[in-house]
Amino acid sequence: MERLKSYVEGRWVAGTGNPAEIASAITGETVALANSDGIDMAAALAYARSKGGPALRKLTFHERAALLKRVAQHLMEHKEALYALSFDTGATRTDSWIDIEGGIGTVFTLCSKARRELPNETFIVDGDVEALSKTGSFLGQHAYICRQGVAVHINAFNFPVWGMLEKLAPAILAGMPVIVKPATTSAFLAEKAARLIVESGILPDGAFQFIAGSVQNLFDHLTGQDMVGFTGSLETSARLQSHPVILRNAIPFVAERDSLNCSILGPDATPDTPEFEIYIREVVREMTVKAGQKCTAIRRILVPAAMTDAVQAALIARLGKITVGDPRLETTRMGPLASLAQREDVRARIAELASESEIVFGDPSAGGPAGANTGGAFLAPVLLRADARTATKVHACEAFGPAATILPYRDLEEAIDLANRGEGSLVGSLVTHDPEVAREVIFGAGAFHGRMLVLDRDCAKESTGHGSPMPHLVHGGPGRAGGGEELGGMRSVRHHLRRIALQGSPAFLTHTLKSWTRGASEITREQHPFRYAFGDLAIGQSFRSKERVVTLQDIEHFAHFTGDTFYAHMDEEAVKGHPFFPGRVAHGYLLLAFAAGLFVEPARGPVLANYGLDSLRFLKPVEPGEAIKVRLTVKSKMPRNDQYGEVRWDVEIANAAGEPVATYQLLTMNAHVA
Amino acid sequence: MERLKSYVEGRWVAGTGNPAEIASAITGETVALANSDGIDMAAALAYARSKGGPALRKLTFHERAALLKRVAQHLMEHKEALYALSFDTGATRTDSWIDIEGGIGTVFTLCSKARRELPNETFIVDGDVEALSKTGSFLGQHAYICRQGVAVHINAFNFPVWGMLEKLAPAILAGMPVIVKPATTSAFLAEKAARLIVESGILPDGAFQFIAGSVQNLFDHLTGQDMVGFTGSLETSARLQSHPVILRNAIPFVAERDSLNCSILGPDATPDTPEFEIYIREVVREMTVKAGQKCTAIRRILVPAAMTDAVQAALIARLGKITVGDPRLETTRMGPLASLAQREDVRARIAELASESEIVFGDPSAGGPAGANTGGAFLAPVLLRADARTATKVHACEAFGPAATILPYRDLEEAIDLANRGEGSLVGSLVTHDPEVAREVIFGAGAFHGRMLVLDRDCAKESTGHGSPMPHLVHGGPGRAGGGEELGGMRSVRHHLRRIALQGSPAFLTHTLKSWTRGASEITREQHPFRYAFGDLAIGQSFRSKERVVTLQDIEHFAHFTGDTFYAHMDEEAVKGHPFFPGRVAHGYLLLAFAAGLFVEPARGPVLANYGLDSLRFLKPVEPGEAIKVRLTVKSKMPRNDQYGEVRWDVEIANAAGEPVATYQLLTMNAHVA
Repeated sequence: MERLKSYVEGRWVAGTGNPAEIASAITGETVALANSDGIDMAAALAYARSKGGPALRKLTFHERAALLKRVAQHLMEHKEALYALSFDTGATRTDSWIDIEGGIGTVFTLCSKARRELPNETFIVDGDVEALSKTGSFLGQHAYICRQGVAVHINAFNFPVWGMLEKLAPAILAGMPVIVKPATTSAFLAEKAARLIVESGILPDGAFQFIAGSVQNLFDHLTGQDMVGFTGSLETSARLQSHPVILRNAIPFVAERDSLNCSILGPDATPDTPEFEIYIREVVREMTVKAGQKCTAIRRILVPAAMTDAVQAALIARLGKITVGDPRLETTRMGPLASLAQREDVRARIAELASESEIVFGDPSAGGPAGANTGGAFLAPVLLRADARTATKVHACEAFGPAATILPYRDLEEAIDLANRGEGSLVGSLVTHDPEVAREVIFGAGAFHGRMLVLDRDCAKESTGHGSPMPHLVHGGPGRAGGGEELGGMRSVRHHLRRIALQGSPAFLTHTLKSWTRGASEITREQHPFRYAFGDLAIGQSFRSKERVVTLQDIEHFAHFTGDTFYAHMDEEAVKGHPFFPGRVAHGYLLLAFAAGLFVEPARGPVLANYGLDSLRFLKPVEPGEAIKVRLTVKSKMPRNDQYGEVRWDVEIANAAGEPVATYQLLTMNAHVA
Repeated sequence: MERLKSYVEGRWVAGTGNPAEIASAITGETVALANSDGIDMAAALAYARSKGGPALRKLTFHERAALLKRVAQHLMEHKEALYALSFDTGATRTDSWIDIEGGIGTVFTLCSKARRELPNETFIVDGDVEALSKTGSFLGQHAYICRQGVAVHINAFNFPVWGMLEKLAPAILAGMPVIVKPATTSAFLAEKAARLIVESGILPDGAFQFIAGSVQNLFDHLTGQDMVGFTGSLETSARLQSHPVILRNAIPFVAERDSLNCSILGPDATPDTPEFEIYIREVVREMTVKAGQKCTAIRRILVPAAMTDAVQAALIARLGKITVGDPRLETTRMGPLASLAQREDVRARIAELASESEIVFGDPSAGGPAGANTGGAFLAPVLLRADARTATKVHACEAFGPAATILPYRDLEEAIDLANRGEGSLVGSLVTHDPEVAREVIFGAGAFHGRMLVLDRDCAKESTGHGSPMPHLVHGGPGRAGGGEELGGMRSVRHHLRRIALQGSPAFLTHTLKSWTRGASEITREQHPFRYAFGDLAIGQSFRSKERVVTLQDIEHFAHFTGDTFYAHMDEEAVKGHPFFPGRVAHGYLLLAFAAGLFVEPARGPVLANYGLDSLRFLKPVEPGEAIKVRLTVKSKMPRNDQYGEVRWDVEIANAAGEPVATYQLLTMNAHVA
């Protein structure tokens, strides 16, 4: 019998007391033992804080992403070891794919987004400079910086690999060491994933620790720099969240709880439309994938009253074809629940639901499928139907298995009301091809849902489905769903950082955030800034051009050359009474082009290309005969690879009086070699 | 004796039981009575949900800002009525200015930012479209939409007007009705402000309710759509936050708690530098403004060991000149504490601090100033000094009055460690002229502070000070400080909205978020889009240009005309081996200019001006002889005023093969009349 170990303070250790027995979902036989008695949780936290935290915080977001990507690659190379263990959680190969490759894919996606969307730095500038003074000597600026604590993750039993990785990746990207505590029911699979992570040797010492068993007194030792990420039930979440240390230290507690998600069939999606079939397929998939043990699964099937019978018949026809059985068999569509205890719980919930609804398909009291081992936690799909006007339990009681209830609604307003009676869900979906129905449901029910999916013939083929949290999108919902936000691309990283408001002089902000701020001094050096290699270019290094007069001939010439003969440039008569222009004015693009002519250093050098431009605003018109001049200043730099890096330039075009006529940020790619 | 009333369900009502007596801070005499017994809190919430919420949600952010601005104007017109009552809270005219005009100014700033930074809509698009599929038929997009609940505000006694307004403005801007419960100690002033708001008749019915007294059983009736904003002590906050309804419904609880803020004197800021004087002035101001009853006040004075005596002497000299007395007198620099109970508490805390430190100035047991009424809550400033190596209470025990403790530090590392031993503060400040010292402190202590202020000779003159939360910057800190975030410009509005992840087809996203998404169909109409008045222009309305060949002559002509003779455009030899370019390529600005020539409709019409451009990226070089063409599509529109609105165009320049060579968003100002 394998005794699972915890990885704490850099070594694998077993608990000292009597371990809990973990049973196979298929056979009911014990497959592993786990407990964490005697493990020093305060020491684990201290180890993370003294070793893992400082090591991670030294790395930039890009460097952390590179490490994590290697971890994901390592896991992918060893995925079959995970698949092999996964069957005993009750998962079919398809279920396991969601858990294992879905989890690894989430890490890949977040790493790739980190490289594209975050700076190659240890902090993130947040929003614009805030002017807090008349002359600009005193400014404000927000930034995200690393927390100096530990991310503690309490995971659910249903997706032991995905659940670990989707929480771990954002924390590590944010520079926070993690301590992972998986659900005991499937801890043998989580432990294998943890072993692969540890064995890879990729993450710094102390960045990753793992507890097989309970967290013991770990919460007693948390501080305000730590965070807790939790996935599971409302009851456990509320209990943990009311821990006095959590309250006293205002420790962010990100809860992602099971919820009573619904799917709405739009009034337009009659049985003769493609949407009807899309709906039936989606509901059946959500009821049966992972034997319905998903926090995002559809529990409430909201359908127009007139279509209720058609929906019911179509669902029953599909559900009848679902083969329940040993998940190791390729012919099996749905495996057992995670454990006998889980099945008992689901049966009790179904009984509660059935007290005010009718079971229209399936028999919750039936045992395993014919031929399957009787010790397994098998339960075939159960479909219920309730009267939406009287049923209340359907909005509060969740059978965490292959069960769902049909609720007929009279009109869209009632559908929205029913959706919201779940009091907060992770996800709600809607199948409609009517954009106005979609809009109405989004604004009516959106505040009660973390994610809303609208399916129709246009997108169903490529849809990732009602139940799949995507790394790009936030996962978590309000109210009953826990109020937390996970994933959502780089939002997940920001959630692990501390936002701080900085106040001070432009020089202070420039130096601290490595981003030149208007008002800070400019650095003038011997040569034109375009002659310095990426590494030698200083933040604040500046070039100020000579003046150039923009003549009427220039404007007319530009107009005819480019074809842009807009009346404001060409027709003195037409521009009369214009709200912004005193008369004919220069083209904005003419100013841009002349500005480039004024600041460019033409000879081959480290500047490889202008690859873009941000936030261009024309502030004041330039009339024929006026002179313009340009200031070009290095705002920030981002190393990209061995060959080059990105330089962001703050550019101001001014008139002869020094008044800004246009401002923008110019982006160039600059080589490391001058 | 005035009996304060609550404003609930559209009328002013008094509580039914025995009211609490509120005493003047100056004389100790009862100035008002308050209680809320018998008020139906469930009905108040229901009223907000059924009346105020729907009315506010119908308005756009700009419309809500316009209402709130009028409220602020109304308060400003009647400010003297507030000043008159404020003395009895113990506030001097200067203290009251911070509370009253600071509060009103906060509303003005937030309204003005709402108009500039938020769309004229009822929702906010958040971030970019997320590609979730290969062909782009299935996309993701985040948006912020209105919560369907009530914002309950539990305010502190020290800034009854500011505290009410800084919480109220973001909630109303976000479309949430509010119920305000002020601290009883200064409820007579809060009630007057509430009366002014109600009497103005500007806010919709049910948008604003006010409770003079306790919240009674209000928390029992909260749902997951509601929010609580709290300012006060750690103990009260932890108690309220552990309410079972808060936990079960995951109700956002934004806590802003008193904290042990510190100010650090940099090692470079020796007595002969301007920074030394800046530091002394700041510490004395923070100790004495509002008699030190500010959640942001400096409690810990961290100074280099070698300068401790100099700092102590300078502080004592200044503190000795502070005139304590009747706040109604112009000669008074510091008034009494808010109440006798408050003074008792402060004295007890000072005694606790003094058990491990030395009182070097002031006598906490002394009564009021000579001549002042003996019933007042007077307490002169008290300065303590402790040994940083042994003192622990100084980091945990807060005397919420004119008291602070000097802590000498040996080196910057110790200063950072001491700062962080406050376990989370609202604000920390640092006085230094050394940018590297500033950087080190920000990254060392930033995670423990909500806001950090760096003062030096460059910015001190215009600085808004250590203790002033600004509407532009987040207010709130981690850990002991409560973990909440208030203000921060439009971040405060977003905190009151629900972020939702939407998934579906481009057409669905376009219709729901009124923002054209690539992949959605384009609308082609009879005339060029430039010929339609703002209101007639449809989202998705598109123009596709004919092609134009970019010749080598064009490139050379453009180069010589503008002066931009960059080698990549001009020198076939120099461009050899270039990492991105196959040979000479067209200028990016030439493409922009030609694109404008291709899409512009020159005759006078509703398009008034191109006022800017965002997110331009050059994706593929264009070689001499290649043709380009442009697609110009209305992405979104924002009404601005009676004359015109802003139109954001999605623009794509493609080559003859249809590959995008540049994409950007073009901004024009369009008249309402064609």
